[in-house]
Parts: sequence; C-alpha cells; structure tokens
Amino acid sequence: MIIFKKIDELNDEEIQIIMNRNKTNMDNIIPIVSDILKNVRENKDSALKEYTKKFDGVDIEDFKVSKQEIDIAYDNVDSKVVYSLEQAYENIYDFHKAQRENLKEWALEKDGISTGQIIRPIEKAGCYVPGGKAFYPSSVLMTTVPAKVAGVKEVVVASPPNGTEGNYATLVASDICKVDSIFKLGGAQAIAGLAYGTESIPKVDIIVGPGNIFVTTAKKLVYGEVAIDFPAGPSEVLIICDEETNANYVALDFLAQAEHDPNASCVITTTTEDKAVEIKNRIIETAQHAKRKEIIIKALENSAIVYGSLEECIALSNEYAPEHLEIMTKNPREVLKYINNAGSIFLGHYAPVPVGDYASGTNHVLPTSGCAKMYSGLSVETFIKKPTVQELTQEGLRSISNVITTIAEAEGLYNHSEAVKGRLK
Amino acid sequence: MIIFKKIDELNDEEIQIIMNRNKTNMDNIIPIVSDILKNVRENKDSALKEYTKKFDGVDIEDFKVSKQEIDIAYDNVDSKVVYSLEQAYENIYDFHKAQRENLKEWALEKDGISTGQIIRPIEKAGCYVPGGKAFYPSSVLMTTVPAKVAGVKEVVVASPPNGTEGNYATLVASDICKVDSIFKLGGAQAIAGLAYGTESIPKVDIIVGPGNIFVTTAKKLVYGEVAIDFPAGPSEVLIICDEETNANYVALDFLAQAEHDPNASCVITTTTEDKAVEIKNRIIETAQHAKRKEIIIKALENSAIVYGSLEECIALSNEYAPEHLEIMTKNPREVLKYINNAGSIFLGHYAPVPVGDYASGTNHVLPTSGCAKMYSGLSVETFIKKPTVQELTQEGLRSISNVITTIAEAEGLYNHSEAVKGRLK
Repeated sequence: MIIFKKIDELNDEEIQIIMNRNKTNMDNIIPIVSDILKNVRENKDSALKEYTKKFDGVDIEDFKVSKQEIDIAYDNVDSKVVYSLEQAYENIYDFHKAQRENLKEWALEKDGISTGQIIRPIEKAGCYVPGGKAFYPSSVLMTTVPAKVAGVKEVVVASPPNGTEGNYATLVASDICKVDSIFKLGGAQAIAGLAYGTESIPKVDIIVGPGNIFVTTAKKLVYGEVAIDFPAGPSEVLIICDEETNANYVALDFLAQAEHDPNASCVITTTTEDKAVEIKNRIIETAQHAKRKEIIIKALENSAIVYGSLEECIALSNEYAPEHLEIMTKNPREVLKYINNAGSIFLGHYAPVPVGDYASGTNHVLPTSGCAKMYSGLSVETFIKKPTVQELTQEGLRSISNVITTIAEAEGLYNHSEAVKGRLK
Repeated sequence: MIIFKKIDELNDEEIQIIMNRNKTNMDNIIPIVSDILKNVRENKDSALKEYTKKFDGVDIEDFKVSKQEIDIAYDNVDSKVVYSLEQAYENIYDFHKAQRENLKEWALEKDGISTGQIIRPIEKAGCYVPGGKAFYPSSVLMTTVPAKVAGVKEVVVASPPNGTEGNYATLVASDICKVDSIFKLGGAQAIAGLAYGTESIPKVDIIVGPGNIFVTTAKKLVYGEVAIDFPAGPSEVLIICDEETNANYVALDFLAQAEHDPNASCVITTTTEDKAVEIKNRIIETAQHAKRKEIIIKALENSAIVYGSLEECIALSNEYAPEHLEIMTKNPREVLKYINNAGSIFLGHYAPVPVGDYASGTNHVLPTSGCAKMYSGLSVETFIKKPTVQELTQEGLRSISNVITTIAEAEGLYNHSEAVKGRLK
C-alpha cells in the first residue's frame, strides 16, 4: 500500500502519486511505431506478414478468418461459455439499443430559418481486440455491438493470432456479434493496416478498442487519418465508502481490480479512520488466499486508502477522474449528484465492477489515466455523426443579412457578403 | 479549374485529386512543434515569452488581457460590428441551447438491474482563435458559446497578439461571450501553454478551434494529455446542383469559398453538361470583378465541376465528405436522405455557406479533408461527457451472476468472479 492517510494531511507529492498513477511515457516508442506505420503504408500485406512473423512468431498466409476456422473455434469453446457470451450479448445489445433510441434528430424553426441536426452512422469501423496468450471475448462484444447498433455498414475485428489460428473465444464472440470480417493481426501493424488499408485489410474510418502501449501509440499517430476512441492505459477503480460500507465487498473489488495488471491502480476513500483500517486489514487478509496473488501484491503498491469528510472523498474522486467509480455509501444516488468525472459508475453494494465488465450492458471500454475528465466511454455515439442542417426562405435570409454582411466585411471576406447580397437583389 | 468532366468518365487519378484536395503532410513540422511543446512544458512562461518575441515579434509582459484593454477594444470596433456580433451571439446561443436541450439523461430498468447515462460538462476549456494580421471574432463565438452552454466552468480564449495588444474585434467578441480569460498568445506555443499550464496560463481539459499547420500539429501531439476537437485543414465546399439550379448563386458561393485561402477547394456536381457549362462560365465571369481576385484564381485551380446522374453526384459527395455541403436541387430534403458524410448542410437557394459561418446559429468549426466521414462539427457535446451508471439489487446481481463468473473465469480473471460470488453467499 503506497499511501494510507487522512485526505487533508496528504502532501503535494502524495497527491501527485495518486493522480499520476501509471501514465506511460510514449516518447521512446513513437519512433518504433512510426517505422511500422510507414512500412505498412508503403508495403502493405508484405509488411504485415513480416511483422506478424517477427512479433507473433508465425507465418500467416491469409489474415482473414475463414468460416471453417470459426466452426473449429466453436468446437473448442465450452458450451457454457458460448451461452454466457450470448447472454452478455443480449444485455449489451439492449443497453446500446436504448442509447441509440435516446439520440434524436431535431430542428429549431424560427422566422424563415430552420436549423437542426441529423444522425448518420460512420461507414466502416475497425475493432481491436487484444489477444496473443490471453484472450478477451468480452472486448469483442463491447467494441462491435455499439458499432452495429449505430448502423455501421462494415465492422471488422483485428486480434493477434494464437499460433497460426485466431483465439477461439474471440472468434466465437465475433460470430455472435455478426462481425463482417475477422483478421488475425495484432499490435501496431494491425492499427496501420486498418488505418491505411492493404490488399487484404480494408481501410476503415474509425479504430476503437484497448491495446498495449504499441497499439495505443499507433492509434495516436494515425489519429486524423482515421478517428480513434481515446488512449487506453492500465485499468483503475476508485471506491467511495462511508462508515456503513461492507469492508469485505471492498476487499473483493480491490482484488478484482488488482488482478488485471501489475500496473492496475485502486484508490479507496472513506469517511472514517476506523473504516479505513478495517478495509485495509480485510484486503491484506483476502489477498493471502487469492488466485493471481503475485500480480495483486504488485498492484497493491500502486494503491491508496485515504479518509476524510464525504465532501473531501468526492473532491478527490473528481480530481482523480476514475475509469470505474464505485459508490458504496448509505445513499449513493445522493453522492452521484456531485460526481463530475468518471467513466462508468457503480452504485450500491450489489454493483461490483465485473458487472459492467461483462453483463449489465454498459460498455467496458472506458477512459483511463484521468481522461474521464474529458471523454466518455465507448458508445453508439462513438460511431455516429450529427451533421447540422439549415434551410432558409428568402425572408429568413433577409432577416439576418445585415449581421452576416457586417461581420464578413469586418473579417475582410467580401465575397461572403456578396453571396448574401446577390440573393436579395 | 483542375477538372471539368462527366463523373463516370473520371479516371482514378482524377478521383484521387478531387478526394485528396489539400491534405497537408505534417511530418516535417512534427520535430519543430515537439521542441516547442517540450520547451513550454519545462520552461513555462519564459518559453512562451521567447516564442512570442520570435514568432509574433513582440515582448509581452502579461499574456492576460486586462479589463482596460477590453474597454480600449470596444472604443476601436465600429458599433455596427459590435451590434452584429451581439445578434450573431443570440442566434448561436439559441441553436446550441436547443442542442443541449435535446440531450437527455436516461435509464433502462429491468429485473433489479438499472442502467443508464448521466450528463456532465468538462470543467475547463481552451478556445484557440486565429489572429495575428487577420482576425476572426466569429471564431470566438463558435468555440466559446457551445462550451458555455454545456456548462464548462472556465472558458479561456488564446489568440495571437496584434502588436502588443489583442485583436480588438476578438476581444469584443470574447467579452460578449462572457469568456473567463483571454490570453494574447498564438501558435503551437499557445496550444502547449493550454495543454500543460504555466504560471499564467491555466491547464485546460480540452482545446478546440481552428489554426494553421503548427497549431493543428500541436493539437495532434498533445492529444491524450487533453482532448481536442479534430484536425482542421483548409476550408472546402461541395455543391450538388441539378438542371434547375441558379448558376449565379453557385458562382457567388464558389467565390465566397475561394476567397478564404489559396488552398481552399470547391467541388460542384450537377446533373447535366449544359448546367455544368453554364456554372463554369458564370464563375469565370464573376471572378473577373471580384475582390480578393488573386486568392480566388489560385483556389480555382483546386476546384472541380463534374456532372452525372443525381445518384452519382450524391455518391461523389459522400466519398468526398465535405466540410460544407450545399444542396441546391429541386427537392433538397429528398437528396438529404441519402447524404451520409458532411459537416454542415445548406439546403435550397437561400442558405449560402456564410449563413452558417456567422448567423444561422449552427457552428462553423467543422471537420475538413474528409474527416466528416467520422467527426461531427463543434457542438455542446464536444464539451460534455456521458458517464454510464448501473445499480443492481442482490436479485438483479444473482440473475446475471452465471454470465459474469463464466466469462470472467474463461478470461482467467478469477477475482472478478469472486467479487460476484462473495456478494451472493
């Protein structure tokens, strides 16, 4: 445990440690990734094959997963897992469908001037799904479902090969989500392939999904060429507790967070020193018997338990801007009113983070490292544009013509002024 | 005129010329801008002063514009311009207010599982307004109004100094928009100051607004540290016409577009060769007598007139994804149904682009260079986050517990599974 302290006694350095968590410096990686991008841009499939051989250790003939490979994947995934992925798919689909239904086209009509916004999906989306040794079928659900619900015409998945094959669970999840194509391709080269297009990989309009530092750097560098969601860092949770919080549940959630990654971080805020001590002891006790204990012990070092007034806990949380925020106080909806910055929020004692990771329906691709101050998690809106529209009558144009011509001429744009005047002669 | 041709006779090279318009290569600029960013990050105000001396040729003591300087600005701006800016402000405010009112928090309730989304503003926004020799008070309105309507607490403007002073019209516009602070600071150094914070410039959460290639490159490089809107390139318009379109209006709009910038581009599509010829002749004729003629002649070289079926015109427009799209056909609302990609859309004969530049209320900060395929223009939503929220009863959690534990264990995340099981004992 890196910090255990009263909030108003934290010094600047300790606050910096908490706030900075695991911001990774990309500076050293940029030249490496730039080279990969350039090579793929110029040499397309042959560059992709070269990197797949080099980084994944396999010769891939055809990046695109065949129908036969999907059948093999189904044969190799436990039917209970297939069923659970289907159930999770239903909930995620329902949530994102509701999200879509809450977006409306609108218009404002006044005096011959009609203005408004329409809704249009992005046409082609690439979803990156981490893989290699581990596999994350849930990330397939979380990236492709919102794209499909948005109305994206072509949704493709790229995920590192596992040997010469794709990851079985990833392939099954992609099939459940009715993904249009799946490519056995990972790392920065996958991002390059999707951003520029090659003989076998389609150029997409947007690339989303989590990945390691190479993937994240590549996404940042192709930004503008394509849209991207947001930079992804190690996972994190902040838990707001009070004197009535069940310390056992906090300890369980702490461990769930810590097992992700040795760089994962967890901040617990509570209203009394007694509760802070109880939580700390419960965590240490529970960690002794936990699976993935080594990763957990390491993550413990990135974590903090602090205590103070509920207002101080909330202020700290807003400054931290956690990817996941659990509010396990007496009246979580009341606390929610004061929360400004968080990716996804879990209210009460029966909404641990894994609920949102897999099955409540909300999206688990969320802004980390303080980016929840400015970004929302992945959603149907990630895949939607809302062009503005205006239509005027001649009278409508006349009513604002002086405003337009005066400002245009003040800005030195005389032909802007003429475009209006010429229509009113 | 670079291309005048039937759409189905365009060869690949010609299509590439139209589609690529003026994509600028940033590669050579990245090292220069990286140095500026690094220097400002390390040396803060002293680096800002150094660059302002070097690039703007002035010694600035205090970057922040004083109340007195704003008073002087009002004395130097024509009262008719002040009045027009106030009128434009009203319309822009009303449009963005309606945009905000069309965003709703929502919840989906089922079987002990409540999920939904809440709305929260970003806290600090920096708006870049180009300046120096020219000045764009309208850009102040377009960047700060949506931020203010979104509920951003601190909205600051950065714009290059004009001599040792700010640009008068920019200062007046900022005052009308109730901007919290205005800084006489431009270029990549302004972006660096806003992204990292210095002694006198606040670190913001998001930077928006148009700028030259140095500003755009700097925004790209600080992306992730702060949010940014999208890369901005030279302005562009595509006009869809048919046999009934008034060629005179098309010529006026062509000139209005062309006067922006020698790199501005304009594509006109129409349904008959006769109309294409008429439009071409009208443009050449009108250009003879136009102000800013040299810029217009240069922009003509980046422009194209093509003709084909209405379906071909629409398909070309969707592939081009224009910043501004004018639909001047018989039935523009019918054509609108098939438009997928455009920043802002102008319907009919009385909605020339300058309407949206200044006064209809829609935003003029729009995606260029094909980015309308994936981005929307600046809006209230640029400054808003929508965290997801979930709350479950114990029964709600029980109902999805198998799904969670099965997928979590398949992904090797056993403590995720325990966090659920431990709550159901």
